[in-house]
Amino acid sequence: MKRATEREIALGPRQKDVSLQRWLYSELRDAILTGRLEPGARLPASRELARRLRISRGTVLVVFDQLAAEGYLKGSVGRGSFVAPALPELSPMINSLGFRPDAESDADKERRQARSKITLSSLGKRLARTPFQVEGRRVPARAFRPNQPDLAAFPFDLWKRIVSSQTRSLRRDTLADGEALGFRPLRTAIAQHLRTARGIFCSADNVAIVGSIQQVFDLIVRLVLDPGDEVWMEDPGYPGARQIFEAAGAKIAAVPVDEGGMDVLAGCVLAPNAKLVYITAGRQAPLGPSLALDRRLKLLAWAQKSGAVIIEDDYDSEYRFEGAPLAALKSLDRNENVVYCGTFSKLLFPALRIAYAVLPESLVEPFTNALSLSYRHPSLLPQTALHEFIAEGHFGRHIRKMRLLYSERAQALQEAARISLRGLLDIPPITIGLDTPAFLTWAGDDAAIASKAAEGGIESRPLSVYSVRRPAPPGLLLGFAAVEPAVITTGAVALARVLESLIEFSPRKVYF
Amino acid sequence: MKRATEREIALGPRQKDVSLQRWLYSELRDAILTGRLEPGARLPASRELARRLRISRGTVLVVFDQLAAEGYLKGSVGRGSFVAPALPELSPMINSLGFRPDAESDADKERRQARSKITLSSLGKRLARTPFQVEGRRVPARAFRPNQPDLAAFPFDLWKRIVSSQTRSLRRDTLADGEALGFRPLRTAIAQHLRTARGIFCSADNVAIVGSIQQVFDLIVRLVLDPGDEVWMEDPGYPGARQIFEAAGAKIAAVPVDEGGMDVLAGCVLAPNAKLVYITAGRQAPLGPSLALDRRLKLLAWAQKSGAVIIEDDYDSEYRFEGAPLAALKSLDRNENVVYCGTFSKLLFPALRIAYAVLPESLVEPFTNALSLSYRHPSLLPQTALHEFIAEGHFGRHIRKMRLLYSERAQALQEAARISLRGLLDIPPITIGLDTPAFLTWAGDDAAIASKAAEGGIESRPLSVYSVRRPAPPGLLLGFAAVEPAVITTGAVALARVLESLIEFSPRKVYF
Repeated sequence: MKRATEREIALGPRQKDVSLQRWLYSELRDAILTGRLEPGARLPASRELARRLRISRGTVLVVFDQLAAEGYLKGSVGRGSFVAPALPELSPMINSLGFRPDAESDADKERRQARSKITLSSLGKRLARTPFQVEGRRVPARAFRPNQPDLAAFPFDLWKRIVSSQTRSLRRDTLADGEALGFRPLRTAIAQHLRTARGIFCSADNVAIVGSIQQVFDLIVRLVLDPGDEVWMEDPGYPGARQIFEAAGAKIAAVPVDEGGMDVLAGCVLAPNAKLVYITAGRQAPLGPSLALDRRLKLLAWAQKSGAVIIEDDYDSEYRFEGAPLAALKSLDRNENVVYCGTFSKLLFPALRIAYAVLPESLVEPFTNALSLSYRHPSLLPQTALHEFIAEGHFGRHIRKMRLLYSERAQALQEAARISLRGLLDIPPITIGLDTPAFLTWAGDDAAIASKAAEGGIESRPLSVYSVRRPAPPGLLLGFAAVEPAVITTGAVALARVLESLIEFSPRKVYF
Repeated sequence: MKRATEREIALGPRQKDVSLQRWLYSELRDAILTGRLEPGARLPASRELARRLRISRGTVLVVFDQLAAEGYLKGSVGRGSFVAPALPELSPMINSLGFRPDAESDADKERRQARSKITLSSLGKRLARTPFQVEGRRVPARAFRPNQPDLAAFPFDLWKRIVSSQTRSLRRDTLADGEALGFRPLRTAIAQHLRTARGIFCSADNVAIVGSIQQVFDLIVRLVLDPGDEVWMEDPGYPGARQIFEAAGAKIAAVPVDEGGMDVLAGCVLAPNAKLVYITAGRQAPLGPSLALDRRLKLLAWAQKSGAVIIEDDYDSEYRFEGAPLAALKSLDRNENVVYCGTFSKLLFPALRIAYAVLPESLVEPFTNALSLSYRHPSLLPQTALHEFIAEGHFGRHIRKMRLLYSERAQALQEAARISLRGLLDIPPITIGLDTPAFLTWAGDDAAIASKAAEGGIESRPLSVYSVRRPAPPGLLLGFAAVEPAVITTGAVALARVLESLIEFSPRKVYF
């Protein structure tokens, strides 16, 4: 074998938090990849290199071994180590493989991003818009954050004790793969709860545990929609669902909403062959009415004939302030067309991330398989804790307690509105839920109002974001459940000021 | 108002576990929906009905209120209650709305399923086939279950203590919505681990926590693939990935594999414009080789030019039995083309359901948004526990301990194979991972062998399930990590018997 020239190697300085071994490995690898050590070059003997660098020979040998195992060096004991001869031409971009600093500058980050030529698919572009927060919301809820339960009222110490005690009792075989549809005892407990609370008769076999209702939409649309298929959406209706349907390439049939909820007859006329219906039958999001009985029956009869799937998103109608919650649409679904979805995010707390679907018989197996393929199954830990919380009766007690609390807050909001917001916002009687629509008394721009209110520390959601095809009645969705009555009162005063300031500059002012 | 006839109502018998209130509600609702109580019919006065049924008047009033709230009854105090006049014609299918028995017969279930006219989309049909278990696997692992860590060796008591103590220290603001990409301290801990263990330099900003690697595939394909786009798959290669790509409508370019891993040059020739590459660079699934250095560089250079995304599925190469784990392909990815995926299912235990992806800079925002839309974010509880487990050093210790244990078991399998399986199965030297391919020494049907072995209580996976276009070399994937050495030894003997019995009846027997 021809003896290659032994090369002097210039190694860069070592950063303080980098071990000798990692530093040497990285510097040698860089030298090879950037061509400073050319293919075939002979490295100094390990003993010699250790002496020169004043490090132990053991470290050098470990690094040589690693580089040999990864293909950078060839060689054998006694003959020395050589840079691998056959590495391909390197991209000029690969020129600084050293340790990237912990705190990368924004400019570096942008440069790194700019190098990328990755383009999104057209589906990807649609999926990558989101109506959701992507950052955590850690601050206490301010007036009038919608869609949120009162986290201060959640029995957190009890929950912690349950997580601890139930974790201690877990058997080792719960470490293995679980069922794709989730922890069976929890599914049984949910089925029992739905029987008494919502009149839904189902067994654990039909209950799927998932991370969120969004995940149910995402799987169901893919299971039943071909591109171009039609979907009924309430107009105005929930943007989190609409965007998933649009992303899937569905044609949205915007079905108007009135005081009886979605106008089912209009749906039958607009899109008689729709494959999917999305409906908030318990409390229409955002306007509030529950779907009238004749429309429920009409919708189910149509779906039975057409074979359409109905997604019933029952996001918060558990909280009815007078009498028991109304029976779910699913309770009438004898022909197995309805996917009923509920979530514990609003009943307990958002970070739990446990939602569920009750699946029609013919979708159980496809959903199970698709979930297993695209997700596998949810983590066991929160499922077992939640099961214990329900089984010990804490869930039922918590719901009853919160129903009273939220009812008081709903009254507080109505009272505050009567005093501070009269003539500015109309709030219909609140009988259910965590939030309420509040309609502008004039044709204002609710998005501008919400953003102005946000500047003043008042949270709300403009109803216009729910608009599908028709303009939504201008107004704000105001949450009351997570807000103390005193804060509701001062919040209403602050919101009134914002509204007054905007009417002042509105061209419609002349009418008042 | 014309006085309607007051109707006698025949109510069905009450089942023992049904409350009076639920029974009465359900019977009246049924009577209305099935027409036994016709529209406009007057119900008996509450006092009269209570007397007749020998129940309290309060119960009757609650039920009347509920039925009125749900639209079945109209009426007012003093005037009596009437069946709502305007219900639509009912489907004849709605005829037994009573309480479905807890234990439904299979015949009833089939009848229910048969009523459904729901059809799957073509995507749905593809998604609903799954290569995965959908039932839990609770039994102890038998010889030779592949892909599974040793759950008996997991420090379960320590884990329970950590879950308990860390749960106790949680602050109440962790109940609120979290970041879509997951619990930041865990993402930081993963980034630090990847730096030392796999040579990957990334910050928490690029790390996404998900429920499984499958979930990463499912989102990435949708973000970057348009229908008909090409994807490189190793052939043979991992069916769990292939099926997601196929479901997404991708054209699979089957790239051959040899002792240097995927033949990257062949990929460049077969599908130079592919948008996505799926690769198990650390340990090719199922054949085992690590991707050669020249191919790594070639692949990255090609991707940099073409803008392709490379999914590096690093499912178990953490367990290298000699020296440190090899650096990941991602460690060379200066141009931000590689999505690196790892999972704790194989490092700790499957029921944890925590996996992660390191995202190229340009995919961070699209991935975050798409995840938030289609899933929101993973449950906090297992994330905080895992973070604590890593931060306290238990994770590193566990990996080192398991590496020794699995190395011993790999040796046990090689020894057992040398004694019992010689001439039947060829097992290459095992240096890494939880399982190994074992090649048939003759052209047998590995699927038939695996199923015959399963009858005898021996688990394995035929290599033929990994075949994409070309036949895979016939053989079995044998897991050793979860199996005690003594069981490995007896398992090898039992497997040898199965193999011998099948050679006996093979037409190829004449060649021996």
